Amino acid sequence: MNTFALIVAGGKGLRMGRDLPKQFLLLGGRPVLMHTLSVFHAADAETGLILVLPEEHKNYWKQLCAEYQFDIPHIIADGGSTRFESVRNGLARIEGEGLIAVHDGVRPMVSPELIRACFQAADKSGAVIPVNSVVESLRKLENQTSQAVDRSEYVSVQTPQVFRSEWLRAAYGQEFSDLFTDDASVVEAAGYPVSLIQGERENIKITTPMDLLLAEQLLKH
Amino acid sequence: MNTFALIVAGGKGLRMGRDLPKQFLLLGGRPVLMHTLSVFHAADAETGLILVLPEEHKNYWKQLCAEYQFDIPHIIADGGSTRFESVRNGLARIEGEGLIAVHDGVRPMVSPELIRACFQAADKSGAVIPVNSVVESLRKLENQTSQAVDRSEYVSVQTPQVFRSEWLRAAYGQEFSDLFTDDASVVEAAGYPVSLIQGERENIKITTPMDLLLAEQLLKH
Repeated sequence: MNTFALIVAGGKGLRMGRDLPKQFLLLGGRPVLMHTLSVFHAADAETGLILVLPEEHKNYWKQLCAEYQFDIPHIIADGGSTRFESVRNGLARIEGEGLIAVHDGVRPMVSPELIRACFQAADKSGAVIPVNSVVESLRKLENQTSQAVDRSEYVSVQTPQVFRSEWLRAAYGQEFSDLFTDDASVVEAAGYPVSLIQGERENIKITTPMDLLLAEQLLKH
Repeated sequence: MNTFALIVAGGKGLRMGRDLPKQFLLLGGRPVLMHTLSVFHAADAETGLILVLPEEHKNYWKQLCAEYQFDIPHIIADGGSTRFESVRNGLARIEGEGLIAVHDGVRPMVSPELIRACFQAADKSGAVIPVNSVVESLRKLENQTSQAVDRSEYVSVQTPQVFRSEWLRAAYGQEFSDLFTDDASVVEAAGYPVSLIQGERENIKITTPMDLLLAEQLLKH
């Protein structure tokens, strides 16, 4: 089975006065994105890696790769103005069929085991996403008010989200809709069922300095 | 305005062969629960502190207080077999009226600023809870399937949840219902409106070793 991983690193902000996008921050002395690519390579060195980067970040990334002697082979695809467009652009760079993982560039702590489990499950069911139970109470906002909902009826969704390439291509052939909250929702809108698999608490999304602090500690332990 | 804080530390497990409950684990060299009580004391030394503890943990807690020379005054109330019962028992120990904060014992990283902000907001509106936006995609489980929901329509709920004592007493005078997911939902079921306030990402609930690792780092920084 051919496997591919689309690593989406869309966060902008290399222009003057903005913070460095999270995917380039140093984690254990190396940019976050290098960790992310390395885990997919560690899970299976045969997996084709496609990194989706905004045009404005390409040169910076190439400099980083030279500076850190990062030699894991990968293709660079152009980021779009939305995540939907970025995934579509990345998909266009994949030749042939197989299983495609779509993964957030800012989730470097994913384990090779979870990646392999997702590919294996998707090989059977066609579409799989890792989920965790929700830890805090949830409320739904409604107009000016809000109401408590039962958190045990919800799950929190991570990546990698893995799909049969034919399904993912058909899904991303659709028009964009505001209802698309992640890749699974795009695939479902195209009529394909998505199955769930147990995720990992450690597979955090790095969006704040606190997340980076935690990732540093997870790396050490 | 009189203020009180009900610190709920219901987690069981002091019997042989079980893990030490999270509220007793060491954080920066001191049991988690001492941090939690200390923050409320730091926010306002006049706040009456009521610690709700399972009967089986009382002696252990008293030993810990002696060992760590923990001298912040607090009342100990009996934990019940459910969280609902624990809060009700704690409430019964509060004399007089004022504002009552209900807080998870395993949220030691709450800031004095958030505690004060919650009391101030509740002084105006009668009931307030701190919330954060939801970071990961959400799905709702339905029978054998699940469906994507828009996470921007949801918020994640923390503690302290602060209420006028009259409202909280009336709320906990109700019969228990499975629909009670937190104190706010109990108060709402009694017919009182609950308002929201911005929470803090750092105000984590310590439920896994990873959370403790993060709390240790937050303490250092």
